[in-house]
Amino acid sequence: MQTLHDPARRGFASDNYSGVHPEVLAAIVQANGGHQTAYGADDYTARLQQVVRGHFGEQAEAFPVFNGTGANVVALQSLLPRWGAVVAARSAHINVDEGGAPERVGGMKLLTVETPDGKLTPELIDREAWGYGDEHRAQPLAVSITQSTELGTLYTPDEIAAIAEHAHAKGMLLHVDGARLANAAVALDAPFRAFTTDAGVDILSLGGTKNGAMGAEAVVTLSPGAGEGLVYLRKLNMQLASKMRFISAQLIALFEGELWHENAAHANAMAARLRAAVEQLPGVSFAYPTQSNGVFARLPEGVADRVRDAFFFYDWDASAREVRWMCTWDTAEADVDAFAAAVREAVGA
Amino acid sequence: MQTLHDPARRGFASDNYSGVHPEVLAAIVQANGGHQTAYGADDYTARLQQVVRGHFGEQAEAFPVFNGTGANVVALQSLLPRWGAVVAARSAHINVDEGGAPERVGGMKLLTVETPDGKLTPELIDREAWGYGDEHRAQPLAVSITQSTELGTLYTPDEIAAIAEHAHAKGMLLHVDGARLANAAVALDAPFRAFTTDAGVDILSLGGTKNGAMGAEAVVTLSPGAGEGLVYLRKLNMQLASKMRFISAQLIALFEGELWHENAAHANAMAARLRAAVEQLPGVSFAYPTQSNGVFARLPEGVADRVRDAFFFYDWDASAREVRWMCTWDTAEADVDAFAAAVREAVGA
Amino acid sequence: MQTLHDPARRGFASDNYSGVHPEVLAAIVQANGGHQTAYGADDYTARLQQVVRGHFGEQAEAFPVFNGTGANVVALQSLLPRWGAVVAARSAHINVDEGGAPERVGGMKLLTVETPDGKLTPELIDREAWGYGDEHRAQPLAVSITQSTELGTLYTPDEIAAIAEHAHAKGMLLHVDGARLANAAVALDAPFRAFTTDAGVDILSLGGTKNGAMGAEAVVTLSPGAGEGLVYLRKLNMQLASKMRFISAQLIALFEGELWHENAAHANAMAARLRAAVEQLPGVSFAYPTQSNGVFARLPEGVADRVRDAFFFYDWDASAREVRWMCTWDTAEADVDAFAAAVREAVGA
Amino acid sequence: MQTLHDPARRGFASDNYSGVHPEVLAAIVQANGGHQTAYGADDYTARLQQVVRGHFGEQAEAFPVFNGTGANVVALQSLLPRWGAVVAARSAHINVDEGGAPERVGGMKLLTVETPDGKLTPELIDREAWGYGDEHRAQPLAVSITQSTELGTLYTPDEIAAIAEHAHAKGMLLHVDGARLANAAVALDAPFRAFTTDAGVDILSLGGTKNGAMGAEAVVTLSPGAGEGLVYLRKLNMQLASKMRFISAQLIALFEGELWHENAAHANAMAARLRAAVEQLPGVSFAYPTQSNGVFARLPEGVADRVRDAFFFYDWDASAREVRWMCTWDTAEADVDAFAAAVREAVGA
Repeated sequence: MQTLHDPARRGFASDNYSGVHPEVLAAIVQANGGHQTAYGADDYTARLQQVVRGHFGEQAEAFPVFNGTGANVVALQSLLPRWGAVVAARSAHINVDEGGAPERVGGMKLLTVETPDGKLTPELIDREAWGYGDEHRAQPLAVSITQSTELGTLYTPDEIAAIAEHAHAKGMLLHVDGARLANAAVALDAPFRAFTTDAGVDILSLGGTKNGAMGAEAVVTLSPGAGEGLVYLRKLNMQLASKMRFISAQLIALFEGELWHENAAHANAMAARLRAAVEQLPGVSFAYPTQSNGVFARLPEGVADRVRDAFFFYDWDASAREVRWMCTWDTAEADVDAFAAAVREAVGA
Repeated sequence: MQTLHDPARRGFASDNYSGVHPEVLAAIVQANGGHQTAYGADDYTARLQQVVRGHFGEQAEAFPVFNGTGANVVALQSLLPRWGAVVAARSAHINVDEGGAPERVGGMKLLTVETPDGKLTPELIDREAWGYGDEHRAQPLAVSITQSTELGTLYTPDEIAAIAEHAHAKGMLLHVDGARLANAAVALDAPFRAFTTDAGVDILSLGGTKNGAMGAEAVVTLSPGAGEGLVYLRKLNMQLASKMRFISAQLIALFEGELWHENAAHANAMAARLRAAVEQLPGVSFAYPTQSNGVFARLPEGVADRVRDAFFFYDWDASAREVRWMCTWDTAEADVDAFAAAVREAVGA
Repeated sequence: MQTLHDPARRGFASDNYSGVHPEVLAAIVQANGGHQTAYGADDYTARLQQVVRGHFGEQAEAFPVFNGTGANVVALQSLLPRWGAVVAARSAHINVDEGGAPERVGGMKLLTVETPDGKLTPELIDREAWGYGDEHRAQPLAVSITQSTELGTLYTPDEIAAIAEHAHAKGMLLHVDGARLANAAVALDAPFRAFTTDAGVDILSLGGTKNGAMGAEAVVTLSPGAGEGLVYLRKLNMQLASKMRFISAQLIALFEGELWHENAAHANAMAARLRAAVEQLPGVSFAYPTQSNGVFARLPEGVADRVRDAFFFYDWDASAREVRWMCTWDTAEADVDAFAAAVREAVGA
Repeated sequence: MQTLHDPARRGFASDNYSGVHPEVLAAIVQANGGHQTAYGADDYTARLQQVVRGHFGEQAEAFPVFNGTGANVVALQSLLPRWGAVVAARSAHINVDEGGAPERVGGMKLLTVETPDGKLTPELIDREAWGYGDEHRAQPLAVSITQSTELGTLYTPDEIAAIAEHAHAKGMLLHVDGARLANAAVALDAPFRAFTTDAGVDILSLGGTKNGAMGAEAVVTLSPGAGEGLVYLRKLNMQLASKMRFISAQLIALFEGELWHENAAHANAMAARLRAAVEQLPGVSFAYPTQSNGVFARLPEGVADRVRDAFFFYDWDASAREVRWMCTWDTAEADVDAFAAAVREAVGA
């Protein structure tokens, strides 16, 4: 097969537009050759357990899956009885970007709360965490938060601990959608476990794909009670890879050493560079702080479309003229500078 | 990451135990670099459409997914209203090996029929294709067959055409689980379309993983009416890959040229070699003809366990002392010979 | 069996607390005796079709079911493909009072909108009616409104027609949850079809239980395209009554003559009487106009609990000290006067 | 409303074709009047608990529902995790007559076994009770049997005890579909608990409708561990009646005294009378013993249709010329004699 695309072209549309980090590809090659038991009883999935325990503690266990939606649905199903519901921010990926999979496939109701910045708080959770024992109400038995959030904002470890404590006191378990957990760890300058296991999180969707993998995520159980029946749920939710060694190898490549940190640190830095480059431009404002690898800008009328002539990116809230620019592990400084120049020109500054 | 396993070790447990063919790995590398639109609007998924049309006709369209269970559930859902049911062989993968995903996630009832050899016929289909208009009965509106079957047997093009004609006459659509479609094409010495599109098949689960991919399958729509809403169904069934270019590249590597044929021909030949090597051994018999890459042997008591000291493989029907030996694209002649020798020794011949 | 309860005791907790109107009971007795075909092919279900066509037009067809949640889920499922979603008010019964059945059993996502008074408008619908063709978003293909609403408010026929026109223009179908449709017709002084069929509604959940039946609701298809597969959906959603003649007889008793009107008119009048009796009391205010049979009052602190010593009723929004008082077909003027006196005393007026 | 049907007409098509026993109607009238708390917190549902405890033991609890399919799905869901499957006879109502509700709504896979007479045994159960711990296989965690069976046959108390012991030893729970439990108790001349609670049954679908109710069934939990979350499952499965007092009153009317026994004894006796009357006719044979209220006869060609000119009934297995004749609480001796005469004439005897 020949290369069909232009490998020199990069943009700011999504961290999923980037490819695979060379070290991840190398790991796939290393894991190849010969036969390994399918469906997870292989040497790479075993090693991945060690890697995950190193980050999240001895009780942690990883269940590799194909994608983030799969990780979220499997993780949440494992926390909930059939009558359970999930309290989540209205802007959560599980609510707005998963085609209804949590409801249709997971069989769970989402109880959503408006937030100013994509972040739940104990107070916001309480807007939906009520009605226990009332059979007419889907029972709020789990909370799901995203770290870093879909809006590029961050929870501090203390904020997550407060949510976990609050959730547990009400009989709810806490799930973290960590599709961009690495970006959060870098931004917080904290080890993963400081804002997951040690903060009381019960189960985690750990993302590799946006961090430089080809396609590798994992459900990670963090608390002793979490994750009942996960092997069955992963299979029946069609998230069980036969040649799992290659998913596990990708995650090992990222998380065994520092690659996850380098990739996320670079992406975050590029976002900061982009924001700084356009922050003073006339008419440009920002909906949220830029704490991770995404910049959410509000632009004067017509500006977004003029910039898009050269660089594709998505509207986030067209009615507010809000756009989303994502940086990733392979965003070059020159990409940022060229993009910022295009914005500057479109603004007419 | 270091290699953790013994790349020299191979066995006969499953075609999923093997790794990735070097040309498939090379294609992944070719597809890497730069940014490509996520979720399928990339150059490789576009090229895959051409490849698929070449094999299956101009109306064919491919929807890459992660795994075979996902392909089957998405494909069958697209054929059926909410009240539809699927007639299938009791031995079908969708019935026995998918953790109930077709029922639980797909929301479909399976109406299963005992078969002598894993193959449906119009007569066997009619054992369950009745009750139309009776609201108490899940309506049989699709037939699913597997080619080559889970028992290593084959449908001829005429047999499939007869099933399609019968199904269509009753208002049913026809799905083929083609996890091992390449092995069937080789064994039949026929192009894919001779026993799919041209035989009247409506939708196909096209397998790449068992043929040498890392993890790549596709739902392929073959008839004009098939596949309504497939893009939505793929997403809500959690089978939509963000970096889809890498799944499409694997399928291109296999199906653009002759790699699929070489891999399947080799696996089939190894199965034939294995059968020939043990066929005359005392007490060894075979449940089915060996028409593809699997050998289903019945062994004298104790033999299976003695062979398993050196080579792991699965019981197929323990009560009948029936075992399954699978050959794959990387099975070496020497592997077969060593394995046959181990069987011979265990039998005491 | 002896009477176990006090038949003289009535309250304002719910229209479901009342019993069966004597004429409905008489109809059940009339339908008894001898054998009638089960599951709907009986003389009463046939007659019900005539009754329904008289109200809703010649194309209307009724499918009796057990309860309102069942009617709503069956009706909405019949409007939607597997990837469809429903735009509804956040206060809709389907969202807050059905234990998640629409999501879990119906497999549909609800896209909810905050409203000031429980009523959607084309503008409010547009807050969620977007993203067509985007596979990541559950596709908004139906709108559900409640008439009269859960907050006791009413849509005018013109308001419903505007919603229907807007919905249809966007490719959505319109469902009306008519658990209290009779109360709405009385309040509007309009025939049913003026604000259903003639306004462009596609499918209806027609309520009998709150209007004096023992337990009788029906899905009624109003537009030619609505209701595909309803007989199958009713069965698989466990809403198919074997001795259906007795459900149909209840609905005939209510809707063949004027009983539905008498019952609803009485309930509405009692609600108006109650509101008038307490409207001037100090500290008592009202969240919404009283247009149907429910009164939603905001009370000074402590008042609700003091009244509840004598008459049980539910909080509607405890944080706002808002309570709900429901009147029904058997509410007596004396009940209202005694209740109003209790409120007056509790307020200290 | 006027009577529309011929109350003198009765037949042998189904026990659901009959109407409501006068004592059940009287109980509904007794329960009417005034207000009672909706959704089960009423005096009749409380009394029903006493009645049920009298029959099934102090730990028993009843959850009234609308119909048998609802009872079965709710009961089985309460026994199973999301990955659970149910071993059942292929002829079970849950498999052949519920439109796929157990799979689609319940989310459970049915593992069905061919039986000679509609009855499971420990040996037959073992044909599907395997694969524990294998994530590819839906986990067999419940057994469902029907008493009396869909084929009119009976389990003895010892047979049920053996099944329960076997199921429990394998980690499975035991459900009984008791749509015709009363017929079984009469035929066995045993109290209910002898072949339910005392035999180790965990949960029961208790039928009232076929025994003379208008529409009244209940899930009854029998063992301490059974029935987790039943109140939520009943609601989300759309089986929660608002005016529940009227369902409970029907069940009290049947089961508080001896009415259930009289009705079932009569129906069973009529079936025995019918069988005796036709047993010696030339060419007439019987597929199963007549142990309950159903007669399954095999007739010479053309006979069934000739009899159906006067009396409608259903084919059971058209290919075997097997028909089903059901007797019920209101079948008169004269009905049986007239019907037998019609068969005799059609046979030409």
